[in-house]
Amino acid sequence: MKKILIGVIAASSLAFASSSLVQEAKNAGLKPIPQSQSELLKLIDNPKNPITKVKVKLGEKLYFDPRLSKSGLISCNTCHNLSEGGDDGVSAAIGHKWRKNPHHLNSPTVYNAVFFEKQFWDGRAADLEEQAQGPIQAAPEMAATPEHVVKTVTSIPQYVKCFKKAYGDDVKITFKLVADTIASFERTLVTPSRYDAFLNGHKNALTKAEKEGLKTFIQVGCVSCHNGIALGGGMSPFNIAAKYKYDNVGDFKGDKNGMVKVPTLRNITQTAPYFHNGEIWSLKDAVKEMARVQLGKKLSEKQADSIVTFLKALDGKKPHMMTPMLPASTEKTPKPLN
Amino acid sequence: MKKILIGVIAASSLAFASSSLVQEAKNAGLKPIPQSQSELLKLIDNPKNPITKVKVKLGEKLYFDPRLSKSGLISCNTCHNLSEGGDDGVSAAIGHKWRKNPHHLNSPTVYNAVFFEKQFWDGRAADLEEQAQGPIQAAPEMAATPEHVVKTVTSIPQYVKCFKKAYGDDVKITFKLVADTIASFERTLVTPSRYDAFLNGHKNALTKAEKEGLKTFIQVGCVSCHNGIALGGGMSPFNIAAKYKYDNVGDFKGDKNGMVKVPTLRNITQTAPYFHNGEIWSLKDAVKEMARVQLGKKLSEKQADSIVTFLKALDGKKPHMMTPMLPASTEKTPKPLN
Repeated sequence: MKKILIGVIAASSLAFASSSLVQEAKNAGLKPIPQSQSELLKLIDNPKNPITKVKVKLGEKLYFDPRLSKSGLISCNTCHNLSEGGDDGVSAAIGHKWRKNPHHLNSPTVYNAVFFEKQFWDGRAADLEEQAQGPIQAAPEMAATPEHVVKTVTSIPQYVKCFKKAYGDDVKITFKLVADTIASFERTLVTPSRYDAFLNGHKNALTKAEKEGLKTFIQVGCVSCHNGIALGGGMSPFNIAAKYKYDNVGDFKGDKNGMVKVPTLRNITQTAPYFHNGEIWSLKDAVKEMARVQLGKKLSEKQADSIVTFLKALDGKKPHMMTPMLPASTEKTPKPLN
Repeated sequence: MKKILIGVIAASSLAFASSSLVQEAKNAGLKPIPQSQSELLKLIDNPKNPITKVKVKLGEKLYFDPRLSKSGLISCNTCHNLSEGGDDGVSAAIGHKWRKNPHHLNSPTVYNAVFFEKQFWDGRAADLEEQAQGPIQAAPEMAATPEHVVKTVTSIPQYVKCFKKAYGDDVKITFKLVADTIASFERTLVTPSRYDAFLNGHKNALTKAEKEGLKTFIQVGCVSCHNGIALGGGMSPFNIAAKYKYDNVGDFKGDKNGMVKVPTLRNITQTAPYFHNGEIWSLKDAVKEMARVQLGKKLSEKQADSIVTFLKALDGKKPHMMTPMLPASTEKTPKPLN
């Protein structure tokens, strides 16, 4: 009887501790990916480019299609590899003709990018639709012209058929529409994790150590930048250009205020190397370095370990995707140019 | 009654024609992908590296893993893209640091490569196991050392676990074993088509025009090289180096007899550009050119069109594959080198 009673007290005090931690997390600006599919759909949708099943399926094909690039060799998936962490695992992106990103910028993950307030490291794109137009055209990335993209897509009857199915028979396939369609697919790349289950009320979804890590994460102040659903995705309140100089940061200057976008921490175990310049390979080092640079704090080993333990719980469940089978080129399809 | 009778006669004479065409095709050395799964498994299996479900699943991950390459950016799937025709759609393969294949060789498709008698354009590898070791190490392809590959795989606990599951707890993960595992996956990349259904006795699997195309294909003599299950895959009986010189053929000389491997015609609509040097983009042009160079025949437009009509029926059903999700790197994983 005594034993049971202790059990009950322990369980209820843990429950109390958990629900107060959930409250603390929410007060600090952390938000879960909603459990309800309809609520999630509302969050990820774009009224100006509404998600439909047909668009997502088509967007997926386009996302994986290297023929959208000038060389015929680089697709969105090359640098934002969905089999990896939604990125490429190298410090600075490498694109057309093996050119490194001239600003020495690291490819950010596309997973959960729908939750970012802005897109690109300097936040210059408002949403994924606008973002998707960038890398396709950028000379050191896919290096294509809008004309190349439209010619390629319209030269492939199966693509034309899909566009008609998605947008109606009188669709005019433009570069913008191709980018919009890719963005529709990207909007669905959401990876709910045990952390979300915890914030959604499943008290045992996180281990004790992970809960402690979350507490440390909040109390140290990581949440001042890493908040919202993405645990990041807004412009940093700190001036990165002033505060965070590395030798090989390149000529990247952040936005007009010298601010850089805060990367998401979701699936962070899969997206090394870290920071906008991909300088740090160890997650623990990255945690310590950010505390030092951004918060002016020297973390103890225990604190850093605790935060890392929490961060690992952000590994999410990726959508099940079939390897897309792309429609064949025709004789009208533009030839790759190397 | 008369009408019905004519119908019966027409149908039975078509059936007769079809079955004699099947016989003609088989006499000419053409063989279908067997319909029976057990028969197929026997054909694609390698007794020295027996196919198991676990090996195939692991091999698939490794096939898609760019971390096996020196740069961390190139996987087997980069040049043998399973979303496309199992190849890359460019004339000459482009690999590490954007180096073109020094012999100006076109990436052959991996689909149905299990049916090839030999691997590589000069036939220097006996099977897929031996072949898979090549491009991973080749300087203008994945440019990795065997040590890099072994270090990478063994640094990732989930891979080690998969290898144990596939080969037993005392497995020694070697470069050869990684290549063997990839080959096990590749052996399953088989694409049965309507043509196979026809040769397997489904008389209506091909249209009348396709059957006529098959007849032309046989009678013109294409079968002298394009035979067997792969409609290719053996060494050409014709001396390509002597007979088929293009300006940009590079320094490729074929095998020791100047022979080049005959490419498969399966999924040929998806594997332009054609020939070992990727010189010809139009399927019809390729057909005419081969007839001219290899058979000394000038095809009429009708003959060429008829053959192309048949070749289109070789488009097969690709295996359904999930986009593989790769296990995360660890701090022990070798860093990419660009």
